[in-house]
Parts: sequence; C-alpha cells; structure tokens
Amino acid sequence: MAGQVLAEAGAAGVHEDAGGFDLLAPDGTGYRVDVTGGVFHPDNPLLAEYVAGRRVVAYIGPTVDRIYGKRLRDYLTARLEPGSWSVHTIATGEHHKSLTSVEQVCATAKAAGLDRHGVMLAVGGGIVADIVGFAASMYARGIRYIKVNTSLVGQVDVGVGVKTGVNALHTKNMFGAYHPAHASLNDPALLDTLPAREIRCGLAEIVKMAVILDGDLFRTLERHPDAFRRGPSSAAASGTAASGGDVETYIIRTAMRLMMEELCPNLREHELARLVDFGHTFSPVIETAGGHRLAHGEAVAVDMALSAHLARLLGLADEETCERIVTLLERIGLPVYDPATCTPELMTQALRASWQRRGRKLHLVVPTALGKAAFVDELEHLPTETLRAALDALADRAVRRDG
Amino acid sequence: MAGQVLAEAGAAGVHEDAGGFDLLAPDGTGYRVDVTGGVFHPDNPLLAEYVAGRRVVAYIGPTVDRIYGKRLRDYLTARLEPGSWSVHTIATGEHHKSLTSVEQVCATAKAAGLDRHGVMLAVGGGIVADIVGFAASMYARGIRYIKVNTSLVGQVDVGVGVKTGVNALHTKNMFGAYHPAHASLNDPALLDTLPAREIRCGLAEIVKMAVILDGDLFRTLERHPDAFRRGPSSAAASGTAASGGDVETYIIRTAMRLMMEELCPNLREHELARLVDFGHTFSPVIETAGGHRLAHGEAVAVDMALSAHLARLLGLADEETCERIVTLLERIGLPVYDPATCTPELMTQALRASWQRRGRKLHLVVPTALGKAAFVDELEHLPTETLRAALDALADRAVRRDG
Repeated sequence: MAGQVLAEAGAAGVHEDAGGFDLLAPDGTGYRVDVTGGVFHPDNPLLAEYVAGRRVVAYIGPTVDRIYGKRLRDYLTARLEPGSWSVHTIATGEHHKSLTSVEQVCATAKAAGLDRHGVMLAVGGGIVADIVGFAASMYARGIRYIKVNTSLVGQVDVGVGVKTGVNALHTKNMFGAYHPAHASLNDPALLDTLPAREIRCGLAEIVKMAVILDGDLFRTLERHPDAFRRGPSSAAASGTAASGGDVETYIIRTAMRLMMEELCPNLREHELARLVDFGHTFSPVIETAGGHRLAHGEAVAVDMALSAHLARLLGLADEETCERIVTLLERIGLPVYDPATCTPELMTQALRASWQRRGRKLHLVVPTALGKAAFVDELEHLPTETLRAALDALADRAVRRDG
Repeated sequence: MAGQVLAEAGAAGVHEDAGGFDLLAPDGTGYRVDVTGGVFHPDNPLLAEYVAGRRVVAYIGPTVDRIYGKRLRDYLTARLEPGSWSVHTIATGEHHKSLTSVEQVCATAKAAGLDRHGVMLAVGGGIVADIVGFAASMYARGIRYIKVNTSLVGQVDVGVGVKTGVNALHTKNMFGAYHPAHASLNDPALLDTLPAREIRCGLAEIVKMAVILDGDLFRTLERHPDAFRRGPSSAAASGTAASGGDVETYIIRTAMRLMMEELCPNLREHELARLVDFGHTFSPVIETAGGHRLAHGEAVAVDMALSAHLARLLGLADEETCERIVTLLERIGLPVYDPATCTPELMTQALRASWQRRGRKLHLVVPTALGKAAFVDELEHLPTETLRAALDALADRAVRRDG
C-alpha cells in the first residue's frame, strides 16, 4: 500500500520517517522497511495491520522459535482472528536453502488453505527469508510476504533488499526471484540474544557500507567496535550516542538507509558495477574453498582487508586508509587473512569467476578513502604481482600479530 | 529493448505496426509480439537479432522437433556463432508441466554454460512456453526468454501474455511467475501442420475474444467456421478476406490485439473481474471432473455455451445472441454440452471454486450481445433454478441434434 501511494506521487527514492523507510524504485516497485520496538508486543499494531483480513502462514527457524516462538504465537492469538493463521518451523542452515525446502513451504501453505490473497510471514535470519521469499514469489504466481528480521545481517542487508533464492546445481542462489517483501520489520531488541559470531558477521556488512559510502559511520564504528555485543542498553549507557538516539540505532538505521539508497536505482541488478559488492569478490571462494570454515561475514572481512591492500598498492588509497580499515575489522574480532584460501591461485580464480558473473568485467570495488570507493573494472588493471604483494602484506601482518 | 524505448516514451498501451505489437503496461513492463513469415528461414533476421551476442539454449517438444527441428537447427547454424547455442527436446503433456521439468530445463541450461546474460528459447505450444518461461523466471533470479509459438492457442492466447507456471499440489498452475517473454514470435505458416482438434481448440479461444469484444470478428468467424482447417492458402483462395490480407491473418492479428489490450492494464491480474475469463468458470471442472476427456478449448466451448444460456435466462442477452454463439461453436466442430460433467452439482461446485479464486466474488462473464459482455458478480444473482434450466436447455438441444 505504501508503495502504491508513493508510486502515484512519483517520488522515486528512499524516504525516511520516524518509523523507518519507504523505498520506491524507478520501475515502480515499492516496499516498506520498519524499525520498531517490541514487534511481538500485543500493543504493537504494526505486524497485525500489515496482514489484516488475510490468512497468514508463518515460518520460523528452530532457534528463533525456541527464543521468540511463544511471543509470536501470543501476538497472533491476541491480534488476529482464530483460525486465520498458523506457525510452522522450517529447517535452517545453508544446505536447507534448497528447492525442496521451497516446495515444503508451499505445501504447508496449501494445506493451511492459503490462496493468492494470503500472506507468508518469514520470522528469522537471511536463510528463512530467502526460502520463504522465493516460495512466496512462485506460490499462485506470487503472493504477499512479510519479513521479521531477527539477525543483524538480516536487518541491515538481506532484510532491506528484494533478492530471494536457493542453492542448486552446485551454485549459490542458482534459483530465485527479485520479490520484494510487502514489509520488512526490524526490531533491534531481537538482536540481544544473538551469538557474538553472528553479531561480528553483521558488523562486517556494516563496515562494508561505512567504507564505501559514509566516513561518519566508519568513525562511529571505530569508537564502538563492540557495538551490539552486550545488547543495546549497555552501549547506550556508554554515553556516546552519535545521533540523538543510542549508538546501535544510529548504526542500524544508517546502514539500512545507505543500503537501500544503493539498491534503489538498481533493484534487479541490471547494473553490474555495484559498490555494495565491496568484500564480495574474493569472499565466495574464501567461503567455499575453505569448506565454509569461515562464515559469510568473516570471508567478507578477509576480502575487504585484501581489497584495501590492493587499493594501497594500486595507488588508489593511502596507507592510513588501508590501515584503519584492517584495524577496525581486527578490533571487531573479524579475521583479515585466511592462509588456507588466500593463495594467488585461488584468489585469481575468484577474480575470474567475478569477471564472468559481472558480464566479463571485473568491477572490483576498492576503497579510495574512508567513505569512498572506486571500481577496478578490467582484469588486466590488476597484475598478478600486485595481488601477490597484497596477500604477502596480509600474511606478514598475521605473522607479526600472532608470532 | 522495444519495451525500454516505449517506457521512455511513456506511452502505455498496445501499439500495432506492420510486424506485430509492442505492449507497454502502466507498471513499465514491456514486451514485443511479432507476426512474421518464415521464422526459421535463414533470410529472416528476427530471431537472430533478438539473441545476438548471447548464449542461447533452445527447448522444443518432440512433435514440433520432428516437424520443425531441422529447420530450427539449420537456422541457428546459419545465423549464430558456432558453440553459442544448443537445442534440447523436452517432454510435453499436461503431466510434464511440473517443477521437475523446470529443474531439468535449468540443469540443461547450466550444463550448456548459460549465465544471467543468456537466453532460453521456447519453441512449441503452451506447455513448452509455460515450463521454459517459469524456468527462465527463476534461473539466476530471472533471465531473458523468447517464445516461438507453434500452436494456434499459443499464438492468440498464451503466447501474448506473461503467465508461466507448472502444476503442483494437485492444482493447475500452482507454481509460476508473471515473466514476460522478451519477444514472442508467431509465424502463421507453422499452424499448417496442426491436427484439426488443436485448431478447433484455438478457435474456441478466438470465439471467446470475439463474443466479449468484437462483433466484426464474430461475424468473420461465422462466415469462416473452417478457418485454419485447410491451411491459410485455401482459405485465402475462398476470396472473402476481411481486412485486405487473408482471413486467417485478420483473425489471428485481431485476436492477438484484443487479448493484449485486455491484458495490458492488468498484466499481473490484480483486477479479478476479467472479461477474458469468459468460458473459464465452469471449464476447469469440466476438464478435471471429466478426466481430461475434453481438451481445454473444448471445455471452454461448453462453458461458453452454458454461459450464453445463463445470459439469456437472466435476461442479459436475447435469444438470437445465445443461439448464434452456440451455433458458431457447433459449426466449428466444438462440443457445447458434456453430459458427464454438466450436472447442477458439479457446475455449482465450479461456481464456488471460481468465487473462492476470484476473491470471494463470482465475476462470471456472460455475453450481452455479439461483441459485448457483462459480469454476474455475486453467487446469489445466479439461482440454482437458472443454472438447472440452462443445463436442461443444452441437454434438450443435444437430444434434438443427436436423437
């Protein structure tokens, strides 16, 4: 609805208000991203209003179910008609991101009587959203779905975009759709229960946005490398709120806004040179060749450190910029080097795969200053010696630190 | 490309030119429908131009492969780079319209090296287009696909729309996408080899468009109930061309244009009261409860005859309108009654299923004159006695004719 109203007004762009953001893409696609407290508190009307008068089938991962499942069910009981909704757990984990899971989600919806006017509700992290979003895109040729994002990456990255998908044919996200959620609900309090490693991985994506687009956000992260680690209340108590509210809210809202502004003109990725691909050129190989020993956000951190060194060696960024990026990642507790996969051979292979994926252009994103980035577009602009030198610099640093 | 240019011009609607039609929907979706001769003749640049510079994976049903496969391969050999294309047969038949077939289409494309810049080409009738179109909608989150429609229904109905889909969970078109083909190529000469029953089924959909929207087209069909039956040349030789060209071309182009004009403002079917649903309220039950003894177009013909009688009994159409519709269907050789399924019980069940599907409204389309139609929106506006009387009238007619 919000999208439709905006479409009539014709104001393409990202519009921020007290409750969140409205995105309207130039092609008319529109959706809402909310930042709300107590999303499952019976007094919070938001979720109930989005599904009013429609049948709802909700999906939730087992861990999130254990922590928030009762609150979700109590909320739906309090706010919706009896018999108009149901909640189902679905298996998470990268290997469950499959077409089989999508079919199961659809079969569950069909058994619950969902027609094309119904709503699928995804409560969880990126994997639940990816599976349920793709299911919603194909069910009855596409129905409404709504996300409640429970992970940090979900709230600042996956949750604000329109990509859905599952792995198939030995390829990540082989099948999928650009299917915007009707609404995306983000409650920062849900992050309090996240494991530290997941917080770090979310911070990796936030560092990414800061490096390429926002020096102020970068400096805030430098002052608060432990943000989200002890829950919003303790960080707020540190008394260094950056923007009137607490630090975490500033960080989340800024990262969300930056991401949405970047996505908005290019929702369906027709443009293949994307700044938000910073950290996402070497990382697929670091993840897969390493047998998923590193989590996605950790591989992104290593990629960003490597890209920062490449920028320095190519004369695109100064020494200090490179050093501050790598240091911030380390202070957050993220890896900046992975000896098993950071070989010239594997990293060259990653460059070639990116080149292939991005329409036979490299489009490697490298920082040029804190809050600014550029593209290295051609493979031949990145000589193998430079790649080797950057890897050596990271290896030396690891030895100096650990040795 | 055509769609993009139009999008800039901002002229939403259907634009006809000598070579076919450009459709631009209000939401910015645009695609091209071509009417061309000798689509596989090496001198015809059309298909080659649409895929220029891209890798092509073509899919073709076994029957079409037997008749046109060699011409297709010779065309691709003559016009495209060696190694940039391949042709694969896929199983047709309603029971192959499944997610498994879609996965196979995608696996074949992956093995052939298709990336997101590649093109899937569907050569065949509605089932091949439905499967390949849905595969293209999900492959790498959506790639370009092009249709060469080889059936009459494909050319005037399925081929000009944006719906794709497969059957699942015991439901027709349970999974699918609104994914417009980049281009849809229609060569009337390909219809010469169609079996008579398929021609009749295509004509049923053309009668549908004539009844609801175009009295001139209806009268042309009355003069040429045997159109397409003996190939375009013989019909042209009958010397009664309606619009400067031959009769078949006039019929095809008119039906295409009418269908596209109806679809254009409502490509994704947000509006559930659709005139093009004429003949598609009772027919799903006639098809399925009859164990698919009647083909889709035949069930549509029975539905139209029943709806015409309902219009007469409700006082919405006069006796002559009803009679001319039923007589035209009979003269084409289509059934207008099916004793096994045309029971008050099953037809009531069909009405209720439609009511459910169309957002708890009946939206039954009934003719009010030749070229005009109206909706019966509420279930209670159609008393069971009226339904029974209409079925009795059809049964009496069958007895009079056959007895």
